[in-house]
Amino acid sequence: MEENRIPPVSRRRVLAGGALTVTGALAGAGITAAVERGSGSQDGSGGDAGRRPRTVTVAYGEETVPFHGRHQAGIATPAQSHAVFLGFELAKGTDRAALGRMMRLLTDDAARLTRGEPALADTEPELAALPARLTVTFGFGPGLFRAAGVDDQRPASLEPLPRFGIDRLQDRWSGGDLLIQICADDPLTVAHAQRMLIKDARSFARLRWTQRGFRRGRGIEDDGVTQRNLMGQLDGTANPYPDDDVFSEIVWTDAGPRWLRDGGTTLVLRRIRIELETWDAVDTGAKEFTIGRRLGTGAPLTGTAEKDLPDFGAENDLGFPVISEHAHIRRAHVGEDRRRIFRRPYNYDDAVAADGRSETGLLFASFQRDIGEQFLPIQRSLAESDLLNEWTTPIGSAVFAVPPGCAAGGWIGETLLG
Amino acid sequence: MEENRIPPVSRRRVLAGGALTVTGALAGAGITAAVERGSGSQDGSGGDAGRRPRTVTVAYGEETVPFHGRHQAGIATPAQSHAVFLGFELAKGTDRAALGRMMRLLTDDAARLTRGEPALADTEPELAALPARLTVTFGFGPGLFRAAGVDDQRPASLEPLPRFGIDRLQDRWSGGDLLIQICADDPLTVAHAQRMLIKDARSFARLRWTQRGFRRGRGIEDDGVTQRNLMGQLDGTANPYPDDDVFSEIVWTDAGPRWLRDGGTTLVLRRIRIELETWDAVDTGAKEFTIGRRLGTGAPLTGTAEKDLPDFGAENDLGFPVISEHAHIRRAHVGEDRRRIFRRPYNYDDAVAADGRSETGLLFASFQRDIGEQFLPIQRSLAESDLLNEWTTPIGSAVFAVPPGCAAGGWIGETLLG
Repeated sequence: MEENRIPPVSRRRVLAGGALTVTGALAGAGITAAVERGSGSQDGSGGDAGRRPRTVTVAYGEETVPFHGRHQAGIATPAQSHAVFLGFELAKGTDRAALGRMMRLLTDDAARLTRGEPALADTEPELAALPARLTVTFGFGPGLFRAAGVDDQRPASLEPLPRFGIDRLQDRWSGGDLLIQICADDPLTVAHAQRMLIKDARSFARLRWTQRGFRRGRGIEDDGVTQRNLMGQLDGTANPYPDDDVFSEIVWTDAGPRWLRDGGTTLVLRRIRIELETWDAVDTGAKEFTIGRRLGTGAPLTGTAEKDLPDFGAENDLGFPVISEHAHIRRAHVGEDRRRIFRRPYNYDDAVAADGRSETGLLFASFQRDIGEQFLPIQRSLAESDLLNEWTTPIGSAVFAVPPGCAAGGWIGETLLG
Repeated sequence: MEENRIPPVSRRRVLAGGALTVTGALAGAGITAAVERGSGSQDGSGGDAGRRPRTVTVAYGEETVPFHGRHQAGIATPAQSHAVFLGFELAKGTDRAALGRMMRLLTDDAARLTRGEPALADTEPELAALPARLTVTFGFGPGLFRAAGVDDQRPASLEPLPRFGIDRLQDRWSGGDLLIQICADDPLTVAHAQRMLIKDARSFARLRWTQRGFRRGRGIEDDGVTQRNLMGQLDGTANPYPDDDVFSEIVWTDAGPRWLRDGGTTLVLRRIRIELETWDAVDTGAKEFTIGRRLGTGAPLTGTAEKDLPDFGAENDLGFPVISEHAHIRRAHVGEDRRRIFRRPYNYDDAVAADGRSETGLLFASFQRDIGEQFLPIQRSLAESDLLNEWTTPIGSAVFAVPPGCAAGGWIGETLLG
């Protein structure tokens, strides 16, 4: 957040709170805080109890993530709370020149919106004012290369994934020529950006699918904490951090077509339904055996703390491996750093069926330099014998090349389509 | 947030930030802060720039709203960021005794979850740990009174609303014998509470509809600020605050059946689709004429600031009223305080159609002591000639009596069903 863009403290709240010491201390550190009513009073009628300041919050709606750069934003950006993935099918006749026009338009509006400015033809400009770390990330599916007549520039492994035995793929969640990934800490911001960008694309493409996802709300837990998914697992313990050395090595494409190198990557988006009904029938011991970690702490079965490295060689008294040969963390484990993937997943939880069954799962989004070298071997290993397959079903699948970022004045995709 | 429940500061973040002065000052005030990476660096590879602390956030996942009390929570509670409204139809044979068992079960689990404790038969107890101001509010539809054989205890105006000319009601968003309204600042918390409570209700009722909604993310703007809806309007300027004197007078039922008095209220839930496609084609002047307020500031057309009272008598040079006879704020205006309503609305934005059209709108939730005396006259006035009707369409409608709260050991609905 730029210091000079921090919104003014709500006078009403500060006066109600009387925590001016805190506010003063924060102001001295270049930070402005709004003091709000605590949670002690259920209904606001509790008199002074409802007015005691308990919490300091800082309005972070104006925070921005720079759009321009060597890489597109929304990949190494610490995951925002809300996301939507939009998959488009190009209209007939959308050729290389049309794609160039479309990407110029989209790039321009995406850059504006991420700065907290209205889109060029914004119909609700007021809704653009709070970007809340908005990022917009574009990806090109296999069909876009054919439409543009540049199929020779397609990365070799950018093609629909082979069908795995565990898959129950549905067309309505699969494929797509163009991806727009929109993320922000605020759902209203995501909704508005989505509308504006869909309008830009409308003359060139039809929307094939919309996939909404969420993580913990911004500020719900400390930032360093690994989040739980809807199965209750800590999800992402072994995921590299964007500031880890290995991150660049595994995410940014460094081989193959020139246009994608030095800043591009690839994205695999899988929609994985969680069979919560049957998962819930499993006891904790069996769940932990399936995963290879404790549910409570997230520690591997061979350790005591979440970040302990799993000891895949450890055996129990009977000589069996402590972490099963088929446990999820063993099947997903990659020995060689360069073959790891970076996951940036979101939860989904759609309308419930009349009998109360959930339509719940994970939007599994993984970034890697090369799908064939990194994603596929892991996926094969999981499909082969991951115990977790019993309770998870891939129902959607799509792959995209994610072009490098661009400088101000440039546009996303120019190294391929320009 | 209870002081002793504030989660520990993430060591990683504090060390990365180096803003120990700020943290220290906060700690001295009984508040713990986590310092997080600012937004200056897009991808975390920017070296020190990415590590400078810019913002202080406080993990507020552990904040709770008391479940027990004279009123149910989730009404006067400042609106949380996320909500789901669940409408159930009672199964055949769910009689008064069964309803009592169901409400005991639901009350017990709701109380646990709102404290951050697992439901009694929680299958993912880890997901219960962060209530994030979770509230669970129950409502009884007209059919529940018949099923329980207590139709004489039904408030006289608790019946399906008359069909208005502007309505295009769909069965799949209307009616319902039991309502559960679940609100929290975190979508994962809402998803988990929803699952647990649906399980409790499953033997007694089938789910008729699920309506998810959202407001600005917690902390996106200062708390006192009026939020914008998806049309871009500031929405709620004239809404009473729970700590206004008038609030109790208009919300808590003080006449009619004894069981509902002293703590109960009624809820009207309308699903109002916004015709954004055509609204967007309207220019700002026409939008402001329709509403009677400026879009930017929210000020009435007769004033300059959002909170200025509209002057409905003011005329322009030609002798026409400045605020049209058909402007939304004039049609919605209620002269007599006691006939006002309290709105607690959420936005919805569902999957987009293939042609790019939004499925967007408002979950209009209004609480009032009596539907016939308060909601209906306003709705009639709007239905008659509100200019805004051109761009809004009610597609769902349901009404509920909202029982008083209960003390620890009691259960919601005991004054009717006990």
